[in-house]
Amino acid sequence: PPSPLQPPGRPLAPCRSFSNDKIQVELDESSGVAMMKFKSPPVNSLSLEFLTEFSISLEKLENNRACRGVIITSAVPKIFSSGLDITEMCGKSMEHYTEFWRAVQEMWLRLYGSSMVTVAAVNGSSPAGGCLVALSCDYRIMAENPKFSIGLNEAQLGIVAPFWFKDTFVNVVGHRIAERSLQLGSLHPAPEAHKLGLVDELVPEEKLMEKAAAVMAQWLALPDHARQLTKTMMRKAVLDRLVAHREEDIKNFITFVSKESIQKSLRMYMEMLKKRK
Amino acid sequence: PPSPLQPPGRPLAPCRSFSNDKIQVELDESSGVAMMKFKSPPVNSLSLEFLTEFSISLEKLENNRACRGVIITSAVPKIFSSGLDITEMCGKSMEHYTEFWRAVQEMWLRLYGSSMVTVAAVNGSSPAGGCLVALSCDYRIMAENPKFSIGLNEAQLGIVAPFWFKDTFVNVVGHRIAERSLQLGSLHPAPEAHKLGLVDELVPEEKLMEKAAAVMAQWLALPDHARQLTKTMMRKAVLDRLVAHREEDIKNFITFVSKESIQKSLRMYMEMLKKRK
Amino acid sequence: PPSPLQPPGRPLAPCRSFSNDKIQVELDESSGVAMMKFKSPPVNSLSLEFLTEFSISLEKLENNRACRGVIITSAVPKIFSSGLDITEMCGKSMEHYTEFWRAVQEMWLRLYGSSMVTVAAVNGSSPAGGCLVALSCDYRIMAENPKFSIGLNEAQLGIVAPFWFKDTFVNVVGHRIAERSLQLGSLHPAPEAHKLGLVDELVPEEKLMEKAAAVMAQWLALPDHARQLTKTMMRKAVLDRLVAHREEDIKNFITFVSKESIQKSLRMYMEMLKKRK
Repeated sequence: PPSPLQPPGRPLAPCRSFSNDKIQVELDESSGVAMMKFKSPPVNSLSLEFLTEFSISLEKLENNRACRGVIITSAVPKIFSSGLDITEMCGKSMEHYTEFWRAVQEMWLRLYGSSMVTVAAVNGSSPAGGCLVALSCDYRIMAENPKFSIGLNEAQLGIVAPFWFKDTFVNVVGHRIAERSLQLGSLHPAPEAHKLGLVDELVPEEKLMEKAAAVMAQWLALPDHARQLTKTMMRKAVLDRLVAHREEDIKNFITFVSKESIQKSLRMYMEMLKKRK
Repeated sequence: PPSPLQPPGRPLAPCRSFSNDKIQVELDESSGVAMMKFKSPPVNSLSLEFLTEFSISLEKLENNRACRGVIITSAVPKIFSSGLDITEMCGKSMEHYTEFWRAVQEMWLRLYGSSMVTVAAVNGSSPAGGCLVALSCDYRIMAENPKFSIGLNEAQLGIVAPFWFKDTFVNVVGHRIAERSLQLGSLHPAPEAHKLGLVDELVPEEKLMEKAAAVMAQWLALPDHARQLTKTMMRKAVLDRLVAHREEDIKNFITFVSKESIQKSLRMYMEMLKKRK
Repeated sequence: PPSPLQPPGRPLAPCRSFSNDKIQVELDESSGVAMMKFKSPPVNSLSLEFLTEFSISLEKLENNRACRGVIITSAVPKIFSSGLDITEMCGKSMEHYTEFWRAVQEMWLRLYGSSMVTVAAVNGSSPAGGCLVALSCDYRIMAENPKFSIGLNEAQLGIVAPFWFKDTFVNVVGHRIAERSLQLGSLHPAPEAHKLGLVDELVPEEKLMEKAAAVMAQWLALPDHARQLTKTMMRKAVLDRLVAHREEDIKNFITFVSKESIQKSLRMYMEMLKKRK
């Protein structure tokens, strides 16, 4: 099938793709746009392996002068990403928790700080870490299906979103909306998410990739260098804050996740998910 | 009369109330929700005595494991609270000004930093310090009567709102709306207050308590611990700022209030209020 | 013709005007309001000479106890101000660049930090530095002509808006809107600018001065001292940031503008403007 980035009638551009286990990446060198598709069923959960692949893919594209922008979407129906993989936080060693959390940080530092134009084409639900991925892009387009919802719902699971999830959220929706949404652990259906500014635009699901390509073209019309410096100027304070507190943030995560009460509630949550299937 | 927190048909819960001079507090131990009613006619002004009672009541509830949330409202018709009591700032000693201002700070630190869910049911006008009380809650519902207004109108009296009033305001409505509203000392009629985000919701006055109970139930559906940590994460920077500058803030208040020009304008304002009655 | 600040039937007030080369200033001492009209055709570009006159005019008014507010508008049809004069950045000496950039800073420090009420009556397009002038006022009214646009479009020219342009912008429209608009170098048509909060109000062009006078009267109804202290409280953090980094900011500008690539793109842009005439 023709790539949605391909205007009709235009000859096929040279195209490099590298497929990994969890994420399919396809770079259209003529347009300079890479398509990154999460393909880790059932719910594209952000496991250690997924996060590692994600960071490596971003790094590869970042270092490829032919690539100027990335569209991030899901190959799994109805779900963009379900967020952090809870199995990585359950009954594992300190070393594992450390490695896992560092991978979460790494992914966010690369994505939020990317010099490429990043567009999230949110074609399914996107709770918690999945929402963070979308919030870290330059622009968010969501399928206008009210059954799809998005939000940092950590509080619902008895968990607190890390400060840099919060900072990213506040930068998008402002302090008041973030305060309420985080305290309630809200998952906002697409129309509400749009009203709150959590996503920039809603389009019918079948138009999502076309729209993402059009938005990308608009952003790529700008000279890269000025756009990149501007992006850095806007995001540096929040990125620097995690960089300055990275080890402390890992320690906090380990202390938290090691608590028996948290382990218990995560196990219960996982049981519930298993039964649901 | 049945408490508005009491769903119809549910047996009356064990209920502890402690009534003081200025504020009536009633705790429904079955729901974990306390009702705090300002009952200091004619206008629920925040006198030293009122503020002291307010802080002590909050502290009692905070330390009561049976209490998870507080609804704050007024027992006086048409007025939520008129704000700081001007008689406390007029013709008094330095010691009195110090004690008074410390009580204002104390009230705000307890309310804005409360680990309980706090819902303001604003059933009347709420200028200046009254607005601060509402802004410091987690959620604000206002009677949709356009005769009721709310705002930090200090500038109208030739007074400057303290920096922590401003910080609280900015956290709710953002920088631009706060800048304009504070400079003009605006009192926003309920519909305008809602449009600006100063209050979260408008309901007919007779539905106010019912709505407050429903909102409270929604917030209490979340596990306390995660919600409390999230709230702290959102509000700590602003709370810490006053804690760090508390003595300086008291000195500023005293210097300001001791000025002959300010004393004169406060006396004139009080004369005007007396004649109005 | 009667000044738009003159209510009908009111006797003409004593009026002091000082006309310079680039900006006409007229002070109505009875109302305390000065009218500042940019009259530097073809596009009111902010040359070194213009900026110097602007700062001096602001200083004169600031020191004149008869003046409490300034309305800023353009005497040139269809353009408010085209922003920084590119000829000042092209093929000049280091000394010149230093002097020029210091003048840009000086203008902003005086305008954003003015103790007077400042109202921008934006009666034409207002890109880049022209937009900064409007953003630095207390209130922005724009002619509702969709052909007029406003925005910090520096990125379109391959230039990055300085951090204090960005800070001023964020204080008006919030982080999210600023991030997108700055990265895209957007010029927003008046109706869109209004929707984003970049301007506070749109009126038909022929009502612009009347509306500006009415808004000014509303702001001047407040006691000056409290309003001024409130304004300082809201803007001090952002003003202080430039004051603390002023020399560094000049160095950054010189380094940037001295690059051959930037010189080349500025020359190309100037050629294009010349051909357009």
